[in-house]
Amino acid sequence: MRAVCVIGLGLIGGSVLRAASAAGRPAWGATASRPDADAARAEGFAVEDSAEDALRRAAAEDALVVVATPLTAVREVLRQVAWHAPEAWLTDVVSVKDPVEAEVRSLLPGAKYAGGHPMAGLAESGWRAGSAELFSGASWAVTIEDGTTAPAWREAAALAVDCGARVVPCSAAEHDSAVARVSHLPHVFAAVLAAVGADGGPLALSLAAGSFRDGTRVAGSAPDLVRAMTEGNRVALLDAVDDALGRLGAARGSLASTGSLKSTVDAGHEARRALEAAPEPRSLRVRLDEKGALDRLRDVGARGGRVVALDEDAATVEVP
Amino acid sequence: MRAVCVIGLGLIGGSVLRAASAAGRPAWGATASRPDADAARAEGFAVEDSAEDALRRAAAEDALVVVATPLTAVREVLRQVAWHAPEAWLTDVVSVKDPVEAEVRSLLPGAKYAGGHPMAGLAESGWRAGSAELFSGASWAVTIEDGTTAPAWREAAALAVDCGARVVPCSAAEHDSAVARVSHLPHVFAAVLAAVGADGGPLALSLAAGSFRDGTRVAGSAPDLVRAMTEGNRVALLDAVDDALGRLGAARGSLASTGSLKSTVDAGHEARRALEAAPEPRSLRVRLDEKGALDRLRDVGARGGRVVALDEDAATVEVP
Repeated sequence: MRAVCVIGLGLIGGSVLRAASAAGRPAWGATASRPDADAARAEGFAVEDSAEDALRRAAAEDALVVVATPLTAVREVLRQVAWHAPEAWLTDVVSVKDPVEAEVRSLLPGAKYAGGHPMAGLAESGWRAGSAELFSGASWAVTIEDGTTAPAWREAAALAVDCGARVVPCSAAEHDSAVARVSHLPHVFAAVLAAVGADGGPLALSLAAGSFRDGTRVAGSAPDLVRAMTEGNRVALLDAVDDALGRLGAARGSLASTGSLKSTVDAGHEARRALEAAPEPRSLRVRLDEKGALDRLRDVGARGGRVVALDEDAATVEVP
Repeated sequence: MRAVCVIGLGLIGGSVLRAASAAGRPAWGATASRPDADAARAEGFAVEDSAEDALRRAAAEDALVVVATPLTAVREVLRQVAWHAPEAWLTDVVSVKDPVEAEVRSLLPGAKYAGGHPMAGLAESGWRAGSAELFSGASWAVTIEDGTTAPAWREAAALAVDCGARVVPCSAAEHDSAVARVSHLPHVFAAVLAAVGADGGPLALSLAAGSFRDGTRVAGSAPDLVRAMTEGNRVALLDAVDDALGRLGAARGSLASTGSLKSTVDAGHEARRALEAAPEPRSLRVRLDEKGALDRLRDVGARGGRVVALDEDAATVEVP
């Protein structure tokens, strides 16, 4: 099994290191955070003294390098990769994909790269918040661009599968647009809802029940992480916010003019039912060594399908 | 203990009948729904053949009448109360308070009435969805208007306490404004968020994780119940939606112009922390037989306080 070198050992990177080790892979990491490094070493994980050391080892062992730093540190890490391990297999777990793709194209034009994003928790951060099971059953996007090769995609996807996740194949732009709607807008909504509730004073908060608690839960996440994630996906998030403003404005207009929220409530109910009532999936195999394999996988992702297993030659996918 | 007569045996009314019985009160009900009546009788509860029969018994036994029908049926029930039990103690459990107050003033000007609203679940409906424990630890608003008397308020509040709830004293208008923010707007937000997510297609829904599931959960509630609740509180809900549109528009403007969501994220985080980190409450007693007792109780509610126990002469309140 291919070795894994994780740069950044916070919640996500630390969980990747644990899960890859648990899957039987040789794995090591590096982090700029002394507390994260100490905590990881105390649990028996290999943490190199610097990212340079970790990347030189990756080059020597032909490892898969996983960039697991905040978006703001990605460029610096990629420069180090270009210097110490330019031939390494490469992926990342950053929550936005187009900006990372652009950096990789610019700094590592010949990289064996496919971007990744596991859809896993955010409320806590740091090594100690992670676990080998964090990705179990979760969706994990692995991106396919014009320049992506099947071997590079397969390496990134195999890591996700080994971590217990289901792989959603999609382009970087498709990913960023989708998570703006289902991950970043929910954080904006939670923040706005919490503030509107607080505007009602102590009485309103003492009358708050399940609907308000559910709707504001992720407003409890660390503000710096929420900002990094949402502000890093600005263009796609603006589209999602505009869609939301349009729908909320239409609800307001209808309530004011006719007193009805029928369109709003019915559309929301139908959408939520679609989320709950996922149909029994069909299972298919997609050969990875055939021409057009990655296009077929992107089509699987666009239809809501996921890769649930990988072997040398083929991906097993489930399509609704 | 004063007997209880519950008109309407759906989720809330049925749970009131069970909880009042469990507290040792004589209790009976009536409902226009044959399935609810059959189910309640099968569990050994007393269900009269008609609302008229139930109300005549209430008059004979000086019971507390609880109106637990949808808002649209309240006027008809109050007409029956005016005819068969005009002297009865009276409360209701309808989710909006100003319209019910107005009907009571018009149809039962001399009523011994205080309005009520338990902040309890909505996702399912009907007798079978209820339980004696539904209100355990929940907030239950009991309204105080200019014409409210301490004995009438005490009777309505005592039912809430006997059902295991904590009583939030407030005016009808304060209640309607507060629940617009912490109950009705969350339903509108959940519907809008679910629809914006679904607009992203199957790929977006397959990448949806905890933040989207939390934020859209109540969009799974029965649409007719959500519409009755939200549309019934139109004026206050419009204010809350306008506040939300303003905050969402400000977030959009800031993200587009400066790339920052700092104000939005920080305000939401602070509001959510206020909800989670309720300070250790102080316990006080408010005598009910003194002049100004109800004004003091309204002040307790406005400060986020609740009544946790009642005896003949006084309320025990907890204030943050």
